[in-house]
Amino acid sequence: MNLQTAQTFRAIDVIRRKRDGLELSRSDIEGLVSAYTNGAIPDYQVSAWLMAVVLKGMTRSETAALTDAMLHSGNVLDLSSLPLKKVDKHSTGGVGDKTSLVLAPLVAAAGVAVPMISGRGLGHTGGTLDKLESIPGFNVNLPVSEFRRVLELCGCAMIGQTAEIAPADRKLYALRDVTGTVESPFLICASIMSKKLAEGIDALVLDVKTGSGAFMKNDQDAAFLAELMVETGERMGKHVIALITDMDQPLGNMVGNALEVVEVLDVLRDGGPGDLRELCLETAGWMLHLGGVSTTVVEGKQLSAKLISSGKALEKFREMVELQGGDAQIIENDKILPQARHTMEVLSTKLGYLASMQ
Amino acid sequence: MNLQTAQTFRAIDVIRRKRDGLELSRSDIEGLVSAYTNGAIPDYQVSAWLMAVVLKGMTRSETAALTDAMLHSGNVLDLSSLPLKKVDKHSTGGVGDKTSLVLAPLVAAAGVAVPMISGRGLGHTGGTLDKLESIPGFNVNLPVSEFRRVLELCGCAMIGQTAEIAPADRKLYALRDVTGTVESPFLICASIMSKKLAEGIDALVLDVKTGSGAFMKNDQDAAFLAELMVETGERMGKHVIALITDMDQPLGNMVGNALEVVEVLDVLRDGGPGDLRELCLETAGWMLHLGGVSTTVVEGKQLSAKLISSGKALEKFREMVELQGGDAQIIENDKILPQARHTMEVLSTKLGYLASMQ
Repeated sequence: MNLQTAQTFRAIDVIRRKRDGLELSRSDIEGLVSAYTNGAIPDYQVSAWLMAVVLKGMTRSETAALTDAMLHSGNVLDLSSLPLKKVDKHSTGGVGDKTSLVLAPLVAAAGVAVPMISGRGLGHTGGTLDKLESIPGFNVNLPVSEFRRVLELCGCAMIGQTAEIAPADRKLYALRDVTGTVESPFLICASIMSKKLAEGIDALVLDVKTGSGAFMKNDQDAAFLAELMVETGERMGKHVIALITDMDQPLGNMVGNALEVVEVLDVLRDGGPGDLRELCLETAGWMLHLGGVSTTVVEGKQLSAKLISSGKALEKFREMVELQGGDAQIIENDKILPQARHTMEVLSTKLGYLASMQ
Repeated sequence: MNLQTAQTFRAIDVIRRKRDGLELSRSDIEGLVSAYTNGAIPDYQVSAWLMAVVLKGMTRSETAALTDAMLHSGNVLDLSSLPLKKVDKHSTGGVGDKTSLVLAPLVAAAGVAVPMISGRGLGHTGGTLDKLESIPGFNVNLPVSEFRRVLELCGCAMIGQTAEIAPADRKLYALRDVTGTVESPFLICASIMSKKLAEGIDALVLDVKTGSGAFMKNDQDAAFLAELMVETGERMGKHVIALITDMDQPLGNMVGNALEVVEVLDVLRDGGPGDLRELCLETAGWMLHLGGVSTTVVEGKQLSAKLISSGKALEKFREMVELQGGDAQIIENDKILPQARHTMEVLSTKLGYLASMQ
């Protein structure tokens, strides 16, 4: 935002225009995001604007402008020195979803870099970071320089959001969470895409969950969000595809952070529940295809299956765990994982899940 | 609000229900207003709720519950010791509207008490308080005890909002003003009615302005607001009627605080511009009718005209000005009014008004 924009930006005008159903310009949106991130406009103006967005929606141009403004509120990683294609995946989350822990080492084993920056759990769904942290010693808070080093050494790395990545999203999400403004596909799209594109990736595979265990309760909403994210990614020059997958049942058999790591290890050992294995292979197939190591998705799936059966994906997982300070003995002895505490957690999560089914 | 409500009240649930178009219960609304007035919930939650109200509207029950909660956020005057009927009027405001200054003494001269608590100007329209304050010495900040004394002595008194009257409205209005949430008939209704009913009146005559010089730009919006306020008043056990009046042109010939006082004196001297005189007589007719001193509105109008031509209304004005510390010499010598400064004000207001016409 240049100085002139800063001087002439008036939040109240942007709120009113959105309230009245008018399309906001790129500079309206940049002005709002920039001023909010810098603390120049108060929460109460932004929450009124967010509610207007929830109820009035956004055009595709507005959604792309919001994503772009949030992306550039912080640093965008430059991984161009890494000679591999960079591809990530993102799931909109659901109970028992632990695919990221399988996919990062699996895809890296095929020679596609996976720079994965993940979030915590939302509501009743567990987050990738929470699952990783059940591995004793595993550090999800690496500085960017260390993240880059792990990525260079083993082709994948998994950390939590840093303060430098899309700070606007961090601030906006905290506000949305307490003002009833989470549930907007436009805001969800901008939140997800701004963080993922900050990873400096070439392509992205989205897994949009639908069903009673997911945030999107029906196929229509899931398809809308999927299409919105693909178009937003394309407007920003990235290759993005979306899978819409069923989340009427928890994915796999285990729910709870440590137990889910056990299940991830089962899949990487060429076993595990069929639904989880199949979703991992399908997603990996797309990631390898977008990463340029397979000419078709089917070929990518076949290559992925081989990398699992040969033990190469599991070795990559071990490498990453060790490089991020985790105790790799969990691979041979999953008793090291904090069983008791997490069994309780599973029970309560399952009960919560069952309750939400009714 | 009882303790149980306070313990179980969750602002986020009330925001979400309004966002989703569900009807809020009386306790939802009481909880929100009470918690906000007490500082128990932050501005950013209330502004999100206000935007949801602007875009989703309110039912009649919700509007009455909001008005009631705002009314009871502060003190309600008990004027039952005063043996007269208490009737007030309220205008939604427009350029050049100075009817209150004519009506308070005119209606009091007929034996109906007028306990008038007024606001400042909004936007390009001047407020009654601003006009009164152009009378040297006139004190619009009387404490309630003094307000009551003036009312007992002369039958009318005119002051500004005190901290004890509808504090929820004061806080909500300040927030609406900076969050693009002023323009909702439901919120406008609750704001006006909560303040007016806090005066302890028996009946109320509303003057809803329509046209380019008013807040309601078309007749349909004005009629909707008028009907909403009448029904809200009736749900709260008060006799309320509404006139819808044209505000395509400034009322009277003069615009600007001191010049408007000059024009008020002209009307009270049985002169003044025809449109202003006619609106005053019409409104007074209704006030006298609701106040029980005339059996019909027409009879009320005739009585009002007589009270003006006999000089009794002007004498009542003098009485009120003196009791509130003002310099009653302005009645004989309007040169005492701060001419020069306000002539400038007129010019700039007229220019602003003309600009807004284009």
